[in-house]
Amino acid sequence: MMKNFVFIAFFGTVLAIDAPNKTTQVEEVELFNIPGPEFGDLITNFPLVVIIPFGAVEQHGPHLPIGSDAILATAAAKDIARAWNTINGQKAIVAPSFNYGFKSQTKSGGGETFAGTISLDGRTLVYMTRDVVRQYASQGISRIVVMNGHWENVMMTIEGIDLAIRDLQLLRQDPITVIRMDLWDLIEDSTLETIFADVITGFPGVELEHAGVIETSLMQHYFPELVHMDRLPEVEEIASFPPYDVHPQPLEGVWKPGNLAPARGGTAEKGQLLANDYLNGGVQAMLDVFF
Amino acid sequence: MMKNFVFIAFFGTVLAIDAPNKTTQVEEVELFNIPGPEFGDLITNFPLVVIIPFGAVEQHGPHLPIGSDAILATAAAKDIARAWNTINGQKAIVAPSFNYGFKSQTKSGGGETFAGTISLDGRTLVYMTRDVVRQYASQGISRIVVMNGHWENVMMTIEGIDLAIRDLQLLRQDPITVIRMDLWDLIEDSTLETIFADVITGFPGVELEHAGVIETSLMQHYFPELVHMDRLPEVEEIASFPPYDVHPQPLEGVWKPGNLAPARGGTAEKGQLLANDYLNGGVQAMLDVFF
Amino acid sequence: MMKNFVFIAFFGTVLAIDAPNKTTQVEEVELFNIPGPEFGDLITNFPLVVIIPFGAVEQHGPHLPIGSDAILATAAAKDIARAWNTINGQKAIVAPSFNYGFKSQTKSGGGETFAGTISLDGRTLVYMTRDVVRQYASQGISRIVVMNGHWENVMMTIEGIDLAIRDLQLLRQDPITVIRMDLWDLIEDSTLETIFADVITGFPGVELEHAGVIETSLMQHYFPELVHMDRLPEVEEIASFPPYDVHPQPLEGVWKPGNLAPARGGTAEKGQLLANDYLNGGVQAMLDVFF
Amino acid sequence: MMKNFVFIAFFGTVLAIDAPNKTTQVEEVELFNIPGPEFGDLITNFPLVVIIPFGAVEQHGPHLPIGSDAILATAAAKDIARAWNTINGQKAIVAPSFNYGFKSQTKSGGGETFAGTISLDGRTLVYMTRDVVRQYASQGISRIVVMNGHWENVMMTIEGIDLAIRDLQLLRQDPITVIRMDLWDLIEDSTLETIFADVITGFPGVELEHAGVIETSLMQHYFPELVHMDRLPEVEEIASFPPYDVHPQPLEGVWKPGNLAPARGGTAEKGQLLANDYLNGGVQAMLDVFF
Amino acid sequence: MMKNFVFIAFFGTVLAIDAPNKTTQVEEVELFNIPGPEFGDLITNFPLVVIIPFGAVEQHGPHLPIGSDAILATAAAKDIARAWNTINGQKAIVAPSFNYGFKSQTKSGGGETFAGTISLDGRTLVYMTRDVVRQYASQGISRIVVMNGHWENVMMTIEGIDLAIRDLQLLRQDPITVIRMDLWDLIEDSTLETIFADVITGFPGVELEHAGVIETSLMQHYFPELVHMDRLPEVEEIASFPPYDVHPQPLEGVWKPGNLAPARGGTAEKGQLLANDYLNGGVQAMLDVFF
Amino acid sequence: MMKNFVFIAFFGTVLAIDAPNKTTQVEEVELFNIPGPEFGDLITNFPLVVIIPFGAVEQHGPHLPIGSDAILATAAAKDIARAWNTINGQKAIVAPSFNYGFKSQTKSGGGETFAGTISLDGRTLVYMTRDVVRQYASQGISRIVVMNGHWENVMMTIEGIDLAIRDLQLLRQDPITVIRMDLWDLIEDSTLETIFADVITGFPGVELEHAGVIETSLMQHYFPELVHMDRLPEVEEIASFPPYDVHPQPLEGVWKPGNLAPARGGTAEKGQLLANDYLNGGVQAMLDVFF
Repeated sequence: MMKNFVFIAFFGTVLAIDAPNKTTQVEEVELFNIPGPEFGDLITNFPLVVIIPFGAVEQHGPHLPIGSDAILATAAAKDIARAWNTINGQKAIVAPSFNYGFKSQTKSGGGETFAGTISLDGRTLVYMTRDVVRQYASQGISRIVVMNGHWENVMMTIEGIDLAIRDLQLLRQDPITVIRMDLWDLIEDSTLETIFADVITGFPGVELEHAGVIETSLMQHYFPELVHMDRLPEVEEIASFPPYDVHPQPLEGVWKPGNLAPARGGTAEKGQLLANDYLNGGVQAMLDVFF
Repeated sequence: MMKNFVFIAFFGTVLAIDAPNKTTQVEEVELFNIPGPEFGDLITNFPLVVIIPFGAVEQHGPHLPIGSDAILATAAAKDIARAWNTINGQKAIVAPSFNYGFKSQTKSGGGETFAGTISLDGRTLVYMTRDVVRQYASQGISRIVVMNGHWENVMMTIEGIDLAIRDLQLLRQDPITVIRMDLWDLIEDSTLETIFADVITGFPGVELEHAGVIETSLMQHYFPELVHMDRLPEVEEIASFPPYDVHPQPLEGVWKPGNLAPARGGTAEKGQLLANDYLNGGVQAMLDVFF
Repeated sequence: MMKNFVFIAFFGTVLAIDAPNKTTQVEEVELFNIPGPEFGDLITNFPLVVIIPFGAVEQHGPHLPIGSDAILATAAAKDIARAWNTINGQKAIVAPSFNYGFKSQTKSGGGETFAGTISLDGRTLVYMTRDVVRQYASQGISRIVVMNGHWENVMMTIEGIDLAIRDLQLLRQDPITVIRMDLWDLIEDSTLETIFADVITGFPGVELEHAGVIETSLMQHYFPELVHMDRLPEVEEIASFPPYDVHPQPLEGVWKPGNLAPARGGTAEKGQLLANDYLNGGVQAMLDVFF
Repeated sequence: MMKNFVFIAFFGTVLAIDAPNKTTQVEEVELFNIPGPEFGDLITNFPLVVIIPFGAVEQHGPHLPIGSDAILATAAAKDIARAWNTINGQKAIVAPSFNYGFKSQTKSGGGETFAGTISLDGRTLVYMTRDVVRQYASQGISRIVVMNGHWENVMMTIEGIDLAIRDLQLLRQDPITVIRMDLWDLIEDSTLETIFADVITGFPGVELEHAGVIETSLMQHYFPELVHMDRLPEVEEIASFPPYDVHPQPLEGVWKPGNLAPARGGTAEKGQLLANDYLNGGVQAMLDVFF
Repeated sequence: MMKNFVFIAFFGTVLAIDAPNKTTQVEEVELFNIPGPEFGDLITNFPLVVIIPFGAVEQHGPHLPIGSDAILATAAAKDIARAWNTINGQKAIVAPSFNYGFKSQTKSGGGETFAGTISLDGRTLVYMTRDVVRQYASQGISRIVVMNGHWENVMMTIEGIDLAIRDLQLLRQDPITVIRMDLWDLIEDSTLETIFADVITGFPGVELEHAGVIETSLMQHYFPELVHMDRLPEVEEIASFPPYDVHPQPLEGVWKPGNLAPARGGTAEKGQLLANDYLNGGVQAMLDVFF
Repeated sequence: MMKNFVFIAFFGTVLAIDAPNKTTQVEEVELFNIPGPEFGDLITNFPLVVIIPFGAVEQHGPHLPIGSDAILATAAAKDIARAWNTINGQKAIVAPSFNYGFKSQTKSGGGETFAGTISLDGRTLVYMTRDVVRQYASQGISRIVVMNGHWENVMMTIEGIDLAIRDLQLLRQDPITVIRMDLWDLIEDSTLETIFADVITGFPGVELEHAGVIETSLMQHYFPELVHMDRLPEVEEIASFPPYDVHPQPLEGVWKPGNLAPARGGTAEKGQLLANDYLNGGVQAMLDVFF
């Protein structure tokens, strides 16, 4: 089929270019940095894809910066946009990131008691997502990618997108298509095996990988100057929790180190592998859905 | 420690009594069925626990009823309440269930396009949870258990509880403690092994177990007359989905059978094992947190 | 006219079958208990009516259960659905009940200070009604009946239905018709005369009949095992209130017994008469409006 | 008791002064017309009562103005304030009216399809009530009277007051007391008998008295120049409706004349009697509650 | 052009009739005072303009009444409506005023700490505006004028109108046109020069002209009996503030006199000039936009 | 006074260091880039100031990037933070920017019809502001600066801050102080004179200075690579508008060039002067209020 053919041909190209780290970035793909008329031309001349990164203001252990989720979602979005722009007749642009996210949970982000974790009520994030998706669509953009880097944002972004689509159906806009990706779902099983091969505690599952090997490696790949491996404790463990939540969370149930899984196994090389998965997985999704 | 001692002594008792099926239920533990003054006496005389079951109106394949999530959460809640009431000086009661839930997702409940799936906006479920938790607390009840049977309710119930606690802090109520349980998290690994031992496709993971062996077995245990195994197709597969969502969900991405994993391996005996896990896990959580 | 003809023919049938009590119920008319595809078939093959019962968690004196409003609305809804299903080519189904209602008022339900009265903010009930009516309509159901058993729900359900219809007009759905009934309005004057004939205090008016002869008789008819006539005081009076409200309600203005009018005159026989009025009034309304 | 004594003494005074019509009004009791520092002095020097009139923009038949509900609530509020101000050491002031109300219902106000009926969503009226009650209280005013002239406002004002009180409890303000009056509830039975003595159709009940003899007489008493008796039809009937609502309301179920009960029996003399009841009932309520 | 021609011809007429003060008002232009059917006729027979005055409950110094903003917006609206009604085939009517406004700011209205300043949350004013604009439009009125007299209402009325238009686009109503005027923007530069010619402190700018010469003069023109020049201090200054806000506003940053600029220069004659600008500016806007 | 003394001493220092452009920035002052525990130490050891920049996604003419408002607010915030950190015992940090703002208005930002203008509903921005201010305060931070670079954000940020403070009063947090600055209000009159000395059209007023000389110069100072002076038309004019708004805005009333005032007079040198005013004005405000 044409669809598969397009994909396979393109996929080879993608594999040929690895996800760049920060120092090699050149092409401007950020909406924030271009004038309005230039954006208007993109809408007119292309089936433009707008990629919106979602993050959080959330502690990420002693070694990673508070903005890690938005920083990584933006980095992945820019890699994907640049790769997409190499396809003939296609264009993607990266919208400014959602810098605040939904409330950090004890068992997936450490919870709200940590310094540096500043979160939105659910309603606020839902409305932000709704407004922004609806307004991009109102400008004639029918291809939107929500690229989420914060676990707790999942349901609220789903609801925001759903409400935006309801609004747009009401407004009788031309239909839009929104792809919603949670970054970690784009990681290949083979990559997981590789990056956890030398980690004694193994892969702890997605929810516990908060500020663990995956995010650490990615930050080392993209922004090594923001990573402080020397601040990690000598001995690291995977956090353990009971099979239920307690509200309000008593302090003794909080995992003190902040990163819920060991981060010491992280390397920039592993980060390159993961960034490649984000890049290839993201482009693949857009090929699947937009063609 | 006293805490562990209490638990162990009690745990033995629990294991001695299996989770009853419907026909053997006797003790009245439903708030809806008792007069107000009787409830007032419980509040006055005990550190009363109110257990609130959360479900959904959601298709559960060709063989399970639309109300399965609320039906199972209520059944588990009643088992737990009855067991709790055998502990000296303790009392629990089951509040009427939340019958509607948050929007079914393609990859965890089939999605909103199925007949029989009628869902609330996120805001509505959040406000319902907030109001109800706050109001029970306002009656002087400091121990509340949210017992959730619908995957998509997770984040909205978390937000509702969080907002209720914020309200209560504002109102300077005595502090309350809310335990939030997602039923499937109470299943022991050994139980999973046992019940999927004869299922060729194996355990597909929690999200895909929508109307699969777990829920089917539990319904066969509690309400066999509501289960229609004969309506299942001869050949069943586990649903497969791409690692991202598409909104609005195109119909070709919907898993037609409705149950996302095979249900034929379900039996009442397996249901008994699972009900025991719900019972023991629920009681254990209450012992952990309320003592 | 055809309309009257249909009605008269049918009306005879209804009068021939009295409203059954719980022990005689047989046909499955609850949406919660049937699988999704079965519901889909009903939508496809009939002009399906969905009846949604609305109740409350509200004290009903010392003798009636807290859930009385939802319990009675559901019982009436099931009677009506079964009768409706005997009409050629017609089908009705009963949705799961709204278990929580709007805030109990001093002069119509005793108020919020009683143990066992747990209420929603107005906004929450409005949004619930809106979401649920809109979503049933979105499944292609154009006939909806809101069957309300709690006085304080009146205005909030009106608003919820109005907002749902506005949403549906926006969505350009096929038009729907919603019948909203407050159960007590279906009682015939002659029935009132009969059931209050032996009650010395007489009929106190609808608002004060909270947990009085009407609700008591109906509960005795449907669920005698949940009624505790022995807990009523020897001497009963009708509550009296000033012609205004006070907020917050001082305790001395609250009617201590909880039931605002005497309940001792209640009997299962009177309950049968009232249940017949609910049944016949409900069916009549549906004949009036849906034909 | 002192309380009764105060009342009786005062009551005589009130009976001695009839409710004035517009032409005789002299004392300034409207908050809108005095400077801020003057209002500040009232708060400082008195246990000031603020009376807030609630109305609607709603058709009132061919003969009464659209603003009748707010106009009458304001007139009654001013009468009450002036009488209150004759009590030693007491002071009341009339806040500007709420000019828009909740949605007119077919069976109590004709419904939303009439020209001149412009209504608020429930949420809006609830929030307005909440904000305004809370803000008056925040100025140190602990005695507030909500004087409602529009049937459909009842539940929304109750909810708004309840939310304001919740806010104020949160803010740890000194407690406030809100009296909520629906004007028609202040009418004495003997007055009803008198004013309907010569009306063939009799008293139709409160809900149907929309733009009927009561409101017509009151407008004739207060603002005869705004009443157009000559526009009434020769023959008038009481509206009749089925014992349920239909949404959206089909036009054939709307009562065409707009006034739901005959208005021809209205006279300024009857209006004087009714105005006296509003005056005396209102003052009585304030004596009951604020002393 | 025809448009200009119509304007010039009309403009002469307007200049010929000065803005009347209260004692000379005759024609009924208030929606509140006419029956529904009369309003219905206006909608049917004219391209009716509805003018909605927006004010506030806000202190206006020691000399002006609390209701000044709504009082002046209503007075201007009535002048404009009467002038408009002299144009052949045109009709305008004045809706009841919005009596409460958005929160008074320290630097433009003195702030919320003054007695007599009672404000709405932003949400409430937005929803009120939205509901009312949408509902007038739903009656078939396509020309609406929002006439705002309170600086802090600007953004909230803009948002309310925007949301109403979104709703109406959803409802596929015929398009409407809303003119939003802030009264002070209608003042001609030459008028400012004239009225501040004898004011030593000069024109302080629009935001600081709270209860200053402009509003004082207008009140003296329209309602001299509500103005208390004798309560002004001997010496008046223009308020001065830093170039930023502080929240919560410390009391020492509040401008004690309440009026932010001197009021002593106000006269009824200046008020006549200003009223003429409001009248001519308002009519001009309607000619510009509605023709 | 000590306060003035501290200021004067410091002020000299500030004047000595000019606002740096991007290439000279060194010290890390962005919250997003530091780990959580480092932020925790700042809270513990200092009276930490958090500065939150607010911007918009809004066209800024053909020559300035869409993100100009957030970009400039962030640049000013970082300058101020760095200067503040040179004061003994003081510390400030810059929170991640609010990237989306309230709806662009025709007369101050060109309006919503331009490509590249993507705005939030008012409610959304209010809730975002409320949540974020409240949550920073909940971490024990009592000094917050809202630094706004987008005119239309003014009222919505005021409301958000007000609601946050209400929440915090409810929560009985230690009091916080929020300074809210609109950047343009920090410009000295002498600076305006200097930078418009060679601009023929002169200073058009703050609202019309959208993408004019001020913002252009500042962008040339901070980010010259994002400014495209060559895309400006040869001849530029100041936009002119009638003294009212029209909604929905007809296209013929929109100022086509996007920048509402000429931008050609912009230079990096002028930008340096303006940046100095932002820096000094911002530090001065913090000295005024926090000491």
